[in-house]
Parts: sequence; C-alpha cells; structure tokens
Amino acid sequence: MSTNNVLNITPIKFDEGKLLLLDQTKLPGEEIYIEIDTKEDMWDAIYHLKVRGAPAIGVAAAYGLYIEAVKYDGSSVTEFIQYTKEIADYLASARPTAVNLSWALRKMTDSLDRACISNPKEGKEKLLEEAMSIHKEDIEACLAMGEYGLSLLKPGMGILTHCNAGTIATAKYGTCLAPIYLGHERGYGFKVFADETRPLLQGARLTSWELNKAGVDVTLICDNMAATVMKKGWVDAVVVGCDRMAANGDGANKIGTSAVAILAKEYGIPFYMYVPTSTIDLNTETGDDIEIELRKGEEIYEMWYEKPMAPEGVKTFNPSFDVTDHKYITAVITEKGIVRPPYDLNLKALMKENEGKDGKLTE
Amino acid sequence: MSTNNVLNITPIKFDEGKLLLLDQTKLPGEEIYIEIDTKEDMWDAIYHLKVRGAPAIGVAAAYGLYIEAVKYDGSSVTEFIQYTKEIADYLASARPTAVNLSWALRKMTDSLDRACISNPKEGKEKLLEEAMSIHKEDIEACLAMGEYGLSLLKPGMGILTHCNAGTIATAKYGTCLAPIYLGHERGYGFKVFADETRPLLQGARLTSWELNKAGVDVTLICDNMAATVMKKGWVDAVVVGCDRMAANGDGANKIGTSAVAILAKEYGIPFYMYVPTSTIDLNTETGDDIEIELRKGEEIYEMWYEKPMAPEGVKTFNPSFDVTDHKYITAVITEKGIVRPPYDLNLKALMKENEGKDGKLTE
Repeated sequence: MSTNNVLNITPIKFDEGKLLLLDQTKLPGEEIYIEIDTKEDMWDAIYHLKVRGAPAIGVAAAYGLYIEAVKYDGSSVTEFIQYTKEIADYLASARPTAVNLSWALRKMTDSLDRACISNPKEGKEKLLEEAMSIHKEDIEACLAMGEYGLSLLKPGMGILTHCNAGTIATAKYGTCLAPIYLGHERGYGFKVFADETRPLLQGARLTSWELNKAGVDVTLICDNMAATVMKKGWVDAVVVGCDRMAANGDGANKIGTSAVAILAKEYGIPFYMYVPTSTIDLNTETGDDIEIELRKGEEIYEMWYEKPMAPEGVKTFNPSFDVTDHKYITAVITEKGIVRPPYDLNLKALMKENEGKDGKLTE
Repeated sequence: MSTNNVLNITPIKFDEGKLLLLDQTKLPGEEIYIEIDTKEDMWDAIYHLKVRGAPAIGVAAAYGLYIEAVKYDGSSVTEFIQYTKEIADYLASARPTAVNLSWALRKMTDSLDRACISNPKEGKEKLLEEAMSIHKEDIEACLAMGEYGLSLLKPGMGILTHCNAGTIATAKYGTCLAPIYLGHERGYGFKVFADETRPLLQGARLTSWELNKAGVDVTLICDNMAATVMKKGWVDAVVVGCDRMAANGDGANKIGTSAVAILAKEYGIPFYMYVPTSTIDLNTETGDDIEIELRKGEEIYEMWYEKPMAPEGVKTFNPSFDVTDHKYITAVITEKGIVRPPYDLNLKALMKENEGKDGKLTE
C-alpha cells in the first residue's frame, strides 16, 4: 500500500484499547476526534451521525461493543455473553434501519457463541479479535472494489459522484471513491465533480473535503448542475454508493441518485453503483419493497441558515433516499467482482458463488 | 379580475409619483418596500437584485427613469431628451445582459422621439404614460400566458416548478405561475411542488413564499427530489420560465431547468416553458449561441451558512443558467398563443404574425 495523502484521513482509530472517531458533524470546519469510552458515547456518536456511512458504522460499533464488554468484572461465561448481547441490542437501537450496524454487532456476539470460550477473559480477547477482523475486512473490501472499479476507468477521465461513499464512510478508501484514490495513487489524473447533495450537503462537506485533502482534482457543484457538466462532455463516468440493493438490481441510495442515473443515461455516460455484498438483499424483490425514510423539513429550510430560507410553516417533502431503477445501472461493483445485467440472475449467481466464503454472505 | 389572495402581493407600486419596490432580497423573512427617489436608488435595486425577474426589472426601470426625468428644470426639449437618454444608459448598465431592462428603457426614450413634444412638461407626461403602459401591458401579457397555460392543465393536477417566474418576477401574476394563480381563483385545486433552486434558493425563498401567501397548496422540495415526486406519479405537468429562447426553441433558464426537462421526458410528463415574446430572440440560432453567466463559488458554499459547508478554497463551477434543448419542451406558452414543435418554423411564424401589432415585437 502506498503512502499517499489519502492515508492521512483515518475515520476510526483504535490503539491500545482507545477508540477515537473523527467527528463528521464538525467537518469540514474542524477535524476533531472524539474518544469513545462507554456504550452511551458510541450510541450517541451513531445516533447523531458523528460516525456515518454503513461500513464505518459497523466497524465503529464493533469496537464500541468491545470497549464496554471489557468492563465486565464477573467470572461467569453465560453472564458475560448475556451482558455482551445486551450491549449489542442497545447499540443496534441507535439506527435501527442501518443494515451494517446490526450485521457487525451480530458478527461480534456470534463470535462468542462459536468460540466455546471457557472464561470471560477469553471472550474479551475473542471480541477484540473479531472487531479488528471486521475493521481489516472492510479495508480489504474497499480496496477490492477500488481495483474492480478502476478497471472500468481510464486516465484523465471526468468522474461525477453524489453524496459521500468515501474514506470516512468506511474504515478506509470508501466504496465508490476507492477507485478514485487508487487511480490518484497511480497518476490517473481524474477530474472529479462532487454534487453538493442537498439537504445535508454530504458532497460539499465530506466528499469535496476528503478528495481535496488527498490532492484529487475536485470541483464542487450544486445537484442541479450535473446535467450541465454532463452536456459539456466533462463527465465520462458516474460513481455512487448504495445503501441497499434489491434482488433485481434496483439500488437505494442518497436522495438524488436516481436523477443522476437518468441524466447519465440521457447523455450516454456509464453509471456505476458500488455495492458491498453485505448491502445486497436478495430477500427484497425490487426497489418498490424498500422503505424510504422521510425526514424533517427543517433540514431543507432551516438547518444551515442564518436567516429564514422559506416561509414559516411551508410544507415540505424530504425523503432521505431514492431508488435507482436497475435499468439505469451500467454495472454493479462489489468486493467480489463486477456484476452486469441481467441483475436478477447475476446478483443471485454472485451471492451463491461466494456463499460461505466469509461470514458476511451467509448472514 | 377577481380579488383573491394573490393580489395582496404587489411587487411594484407607483402612486402619486412615488415608486415603491418589494425588496426581494429580504424575502421570505421580511416584507419590506423600499422607496426609489433617484436613478441611483433604482440602479442599486436592480444591481443588488432587490427587484428581479426580467419583466419586473423592465417595469421598475421605466418608472425609475420617469422619476429622475421629472427633475429636469430647464426648458429645452433637445436637452430634456438628451438628459433622459443619459438616465436610460445609466440604468441599463445595472444589468447589461437583462434583455427586458434595455428593451423597456428604449421604449421609454423612443416614446419621446415619436411624440414630437413641444416642451419638457409634455415629455414628462409622455414618459409617465409610457411607464404606465409598460406596466399595464406586462400584467396583460401575464394574464394572457396564464389563460393559454391553463388551457393545458386540468383541475387537481400536480405541477412542478423550478426557480421563480411568479408574481414578484413580473408586474403581477408571473409567467409560469400565472396559470396556477388563475386556476387557484377558479378552484382548480392544484398541488404544486417547488424546487428550492440552488444556489440562490429562489424556489424556497420566493416561489414557495408567494404561492403559500396566495393560499396555493405548495410543497417545497430540494432540486434532487424532483425525480422522486415524478416517479411517485405526483407530477402531471412541469411549468418553468425562460430568460432567452433561441430561434430553434432551445430555452435558457435558471440552472437546473434542463435536468428537470430530461426527468420529465423520462417519466412522460409534459414540460411547458413560459416565454414572453420579448424573450424570443430569432437572431440567436440555437442554445449553443447563448452565453451563460458564471458566478462566484461563494454562492454555493458560503452565502447562506453559519459554518463552512465546504473546505476552504475548494474549486467550484457555478453557472447561473442552463439551456434546455427544444426536444424536451412539450410546448412554449407566450402571451400571443401556444407554440408547438417544430419550433424553428412555428416561433418564426408567431413572431411574423404579430410583427408591428405592438411595440415589443418590432424591436
């Protein structure tokens, strides 16, 4: 692994039993690490989006579980396991819809069940091992997605992205930004356009911040300018993350993603969705079955402003995600390989092929 | 004309020689009228967007010219005309690219040339008459566009709009919002979705404010949510304004308009552009020939915020307008009638047909 600038950003640090998280709510103004000492600290960090991005939440929560579990001072294995599961349930309640959060916590508690530990000390060691393994696996998965993704890109390309599926949304490298960082390390000279991503501005606050910090050529635009940069011929590929993909390839991601996909199709630009296999949900048939979280209107008209930006009491509609129809997706990039249409067949084949190869796919 | 709520908003008031403008930079927080006493006041109001929207600027500037011209205290007709033209040149410099501004000012000075006035007093009367006529014509044009536009809509429809081409962008009623107000007066029960329109938020600050005030059912959304409300089947028509239309029907309008047009096409929703004939420029062949104003990045990442929303020094691209290709425009609504494709032939025919019928089209 090289030592380029991107490595300067470490969203989750765990060293000698101490867990530090980069507080994403303070970016880009301040780079502040908060120390997580208790399960309450961890719950708060997840709930208030200080740590965000499905993979990052999973990794952080695994360490958070460990940090509280080591406080157990009894000698009963049964009691220790029960104690650990209660912490897991508590942490999972911070964002009940985050698939990766409950996935990582279950992986932690399952590791105890599997290990046949003979005392709590062994259990604590097991938990630390599992947390570090989740952390390492996430970095490897991001690197794998980066390599697969990079095989679809060429030096000098213009690349548009929406929201933040970058380094700080994962343990490192990100999902859809991973090929950009790998390409950057290899002198590809990409020119990236970052949609600001209203209403919470993850593109402006996070994506343009992390790419800029890594020395990648990034231009911030408003969401409604994507069509213009595409029409000008400045965009050769679109890369986005995914929060949940249905069995037919419909992918839910940050609000506005589906519009970018439609524009890309109109301008003949490939649209790549980066989907860790832990995000593929074969039990969900199509995108219509994915429930979309609706959030408060204040995010649209109040949150960032010094003065009122809309009349008091105006009605709003503020969906957090939208579903991109599979027909607009050129390819799905996973850590196991690239999936092309027809997605209903090929996603199933990919998942079957890898079943049991690691903990993720069997759960 | 009915007396519904919408008439409560009067962006330009002229009464007993006193000119009052609704300061649009203070909306929606405060409804403040500023008095225009001098040509400098008028220049400042135009330059700082206190009055905005092509038709509104034209009407306001006509009164602004009159207000300064009446101060002439000499007796020479030649000198008075020269004095008036100098005021016109000065006011036109406030926004050199605004077609309607120079059009209205030229109409004012031409009225003096045509009238063969015998003394400055007559000239002053002529100027007042002309300003009031421009004002009245604008209201009539908006009403005509409203009636034509309404003929394309049905009660209960969901209508999406982008930016603000409403009452406050004109003397009254607006261009693309005129059919919504007329329909509202007649109990059509429209459900309007207003794109917030980044970066300057004209949709949030102005459109949702004026529709809300008039009692129209309006829902504010972020620009990147338009695809979602369309997909849900909530939008039956899109209505937008136009800053300049080329001879082939390509129309420049607020940034983001072209994306909305592409999404509307994808979802099979008619896309209507409201284009006063003074905005149709047959000398401009296609949209490629329309120069697009680029503005400062601060508008994207600094203007409305309490804390930094993007890393310091991030590169931005901030075009003020985009061009909607004529192939996405279902119909062009003018005050002279509805124009359908092929636009190259039909726009020319419309303009020829109406040539000389009023001052506007021959200039």
